[in-house]
Amino acid sequence: MAKEITAQQEDYSQWYLDIVKKANLAANSKVRGCMVIKPYGYAVWEKMRDDLDRRFKETGHQNAYFPLLIPKSFLSKEAEHVEGFAKECAVVTHHRLMNDPDGQGVVVDPDAKLEEELIIRPTSETIIWDTYRDWISSYRDLPLLINQWANVMRWEMRTRFFLRTAEFLWQEGHTAHASQEEAVAEARQMLEVYASFAEEILAMPVYKGEKTAYERFAGAEDTYTIEALMQDGKALQAGTSHFLGQNFAKAFDVKYLNEKNKEEYVWATSWGVSTRLMGALIMTHSDDEGLVLPPRIAPTQVVIIPIPKPNEEIDAVVAKIMEELKALGISVKYDNDRKRRPGFKFAEHEMHGIPVRLALGKRDLANGQIEVARRDTKEKMSYPLEGLAENIKNLLEEIQSNLFNQAKARLDQGTHIVNNWEEFVDVIENKGGFAYAYWDGTTETELKIKELTGATSRCIPLETPTGAEEVAEPKCVLTGAPAKARVLFAKAY
Amino acid sequence: MAKEITAQQEDYSQWYLDIVKKANLAANSKVRGCMVIKPYGYAVWEKMRDDLDRRFKETGHQNAYFPLLIPKSFLSKEAEHVEGFAKECAVVTHHRLMNDPDGQGVVVDPDAKLEEELIIRPTSETIIWDTYRDWISSYRDLPLLINQWANVMRWEMRTRFFLRTAEFLWQEGHTAHASQEEAVAEARQMLEVYASFAEEILAMPVYKGEKTAYERFAGAEDTYTIEALMQDGKALQAGTSHFLGQNFAKAFDVKYLNEKNKEEYVWATSWGVSTRLMGALIMTHSDDEGLVLPPRIAPTQVVIIPIPKPNEEIDAVVAKIMEELKALGISVKYDNDRKRRPGFKFAEHEMHGIPVRLALGKRDLANGQIEVARRDTKEKMSYPLEGLAENIKNLLEEIQSNLFNQAKARLDQGTHIVNNWEEFVDVIENKGGFAYAYWDGTTETELKIKELTGATSRCIPLETPTGAEEVAEPKCVLTGAPAKARVLFAKAY
Repeated sequence: MAKEITAQQEDYSQWYLDIVKKANLAANSKVRGCMVIKPYGYAVWEKMRDDLDRRFKETGHQNAYFPLLIPKSFLSKEAEHVEGFAKECAVVTHHRLMNDPDGQGVVVDPDAKLEEELIIRPTSETIIWDTYRDWISSYRDLPLLINQWANVMRWEMRTRFFLRTAEFLWQEGHTAHASQEEAVAEARQMLEVYASFAEEILAMPVYKGEKTAYERFAGAEDTYTIEALMQDGKALQAGTSHFLGQNFAKAFDVKYLNEKNKEEYVWATSWGVSTRLMGALIMTHSDDEGLVLPPRIAPTQVVIIPIPKPNEEIDAVVAKIMEELKALGISVKYDNDRKRRPGFKFAEHEMHGIPVRLALGKRDLANGQIEVARRDTKEKMSYPLEGLAENIKNLLEEIQSNLFNQAKARLDQGTHIVNNWEEFVDVIENKGGFAYAYWDGTTETELKIKELTGATSRCIPLETPTGAEEVAEPKCVLTGAPAKARVLFAKAY
Repeated sequence: MAKEITAQQEDYSQWYLDIVKKANLAANSKVRGCMVIKPYGYAVWEKMRDDLDRRFKETGHQNAYFPLLIPKSFLSKEAEHVEGFAKECAVVTHHRLMNDPDGQGVVVDPDAKLEEELIIRPTSETIIWDTYRDWISSYRDLPLLINQWANVMRWEMRTRFFLRTAEFLWQEGHTAHASQEEAVAEARQMLEVYASFAEEILAMPVYKGEKTAYERFAGAEDTYTIEALMQDGKALQAGTSHFLGQNFAKAFDVKYLNEKNKEEYVWATSWGVSTRLMGALIMTHSDDEGLVLPPRIAPTQVVIIPIPKPNEEIDAVVAKIMEELKALGISVKYDNDRKRRPGFKFAEHEMHGIPVRLALGKRDLANGQIEVARRDTKEKMSYPLEGLAENIKNLLEEIQSNLFNQAKARLDQGTHIVNNWEEFVDVIENKGGFAYAYWDGTTETELKIKELTGATSRCIPLETPTGAEEVAEPKCVLTGAPAKARVLFAKAY
């Protein structure tokens, strides 16, 4: 690696940008706010996608694909939705270019103006519910459990790799149900799916909770969220699941005949995670040497480096090791490039966050052992060649747990039970992390807290954070009015 | 199934539409020319995608993702490319809507006009080569072997499910090489990958060939194609692979330092297949009872139906059969719905093209056997329960071969060696299929043939079709001028 990266302590934002670039995760494009996801970044995203897709299918969902473009009028049909999504968006107004009559190049053909403008989907509730009207007529058609993997676009003014880009990749589940109870259960089930994925695969502990009315998805009755804590003390919303009530069914006139042959509006949910998870992953585990990937999400789990160069003897031993590792389902690469020195390779694989590095030289061979380096703790050890694959498998599991435990300790230490405004401000301005505080239930108070400290309400957690005891007659941390809920506040991405 | 479908003989186009709708493959949307891919259709596409993706990775390619939107000026940089792609396309001109000051709903905000219009990608050569300039500087960066799975948009006036839609899903490979030889070899390798996929998985035999200059991709030096023959005698281009020379490297200034430290332009290829393959698949095997799927592309390979209803005894035997089938990697469903009768289920699974149907009743159980129905030949047989899974596995392989052999016989019989214009016209106007004929090498002749008969040049095949003998001093079938090549002509989708 030619250049080192900025230290986290020095400038966390710059460190993040450096990681994205140096670990070959993404690059800027010439299109405002749109990034290119590079092969290594895309390989990590593919692993996320495949694991999530398996979980969606296991819970009975099927994939489908709906149009990219949404007629402008669709957006206006659900009153809150249009406020949330119809503002900053890409608008298609014409369907043809023509040669520039006055010069080189092409210009928009004024005769090819669309009768109705089309919007590049910022989210697909409207086009999907317009379709569901044709698909649902009786209770026998329900539940309808559909997911879509797609690109979406929101015209963001200030963009940041993965965390906020004009175009991003995501999945959006859109389900239709015969009853409110079933729809709420679905929204909560998908919250659990997201939380398990985040914790088991990304080794990223999260709070599961409910959003306040102000922070809800535009058009939802309830929004559930998983919230993670980044290394710099800021929160990150990593996935959301919405109970949409009958709002979209009413807006798009989707009714069904129930078992008593009576017409009713359908109940809905939607839920999504996006390439934003890539940003969350980076800011949960990585360090000043580069990316750190939990083994379960690493495209390559083990890399083997010959010391100082490949030769016949080393190649033969490596071939056997690779075969044994692959037989255990471990992904492994042999970096046998003769043009680059081991030191260079070590730094490069560290930058890419490969969980385990094996190095094999003459002396190791003589001793029947191999050098093993962990990316997470940077420990180096010698393992016997005998029984290596099984030991590496255990080591990968140990690394996965260690990364989760580290992040969990950070989340726990970063969650502060605050009892008064002074403590609240101290957490938000000095300590960082979550302030768990009573709130009077009004949007005014939320907005005032944001104005005063920059912190937003992240969620009302479904399970009480460790160490928080219930208070009799609790009062709002800002106004002192009787509290309606206890909320995790934080500065957030 | 409530209604039957139109017979192929009666109206092939209507038959196709009926299959798409009744087999739940796709549906119309409110957006002009854009379809919804329904869950069953998407499941078939996912199987295509996964198999192709595996083949791309095995040949050293990596996936990445590039922006959906392309600045208008990019399209003009490659002179032929702009002629081919900058005409009918979706143009984004604004980035904001606002509440309509005069009424309900939203209108385009005139203050949010983009400085430069953006085009929804019709294909991504331009945005990708603009990116490659930053990624390639030396021969060490080559070859660059990248693929993208994406949605693209071409503003088609007359659309048809899967075959021609404004938005469609595809993959586009874009590779960069240090030499012409290597790039040509890559383009031909990917042609082979497409052909093997079509034949091995879709059971769809194809001609591999080269396009004439007139039929080439806009911006290519050579276009390779796989051409299949549909049941109605029309050809279908099922995949193309292009050698792009240095055209895009020159248009986007992508150079590399060779091993002698001299700067050279990079050589390029691109290659793609799309959801069009779904149309090809339908029109290769299906019949008047509905879709027919080769086992290797069927989301469900075997369905089991209890006669007349599920009961404890049947359920127990079915559970064991399913376990054994799954252990052999066979996908199987038990249709134990009590509300629908066997006859209804039979028709429905036939419509969906499930390759093998098993039916199990009291008498079968008593005899230790099960009824087996093949979707391809409609044969019904009894198999002993003992050793069933292994026999079903063999049957699925037999069905796969049978479907390929049937389609191959049709392709062979539908390929006519023609020696004069009368025979040519007879093939195109009466017999259908390919006319393999000598051609003088001029675009004028190609266009004249199209004007006179509606047939287009499909390809100059890489291997001579069976039965064609070489002619000394061959003459063009239309003009009688000395022939430059022997071409497969046909009416085409």
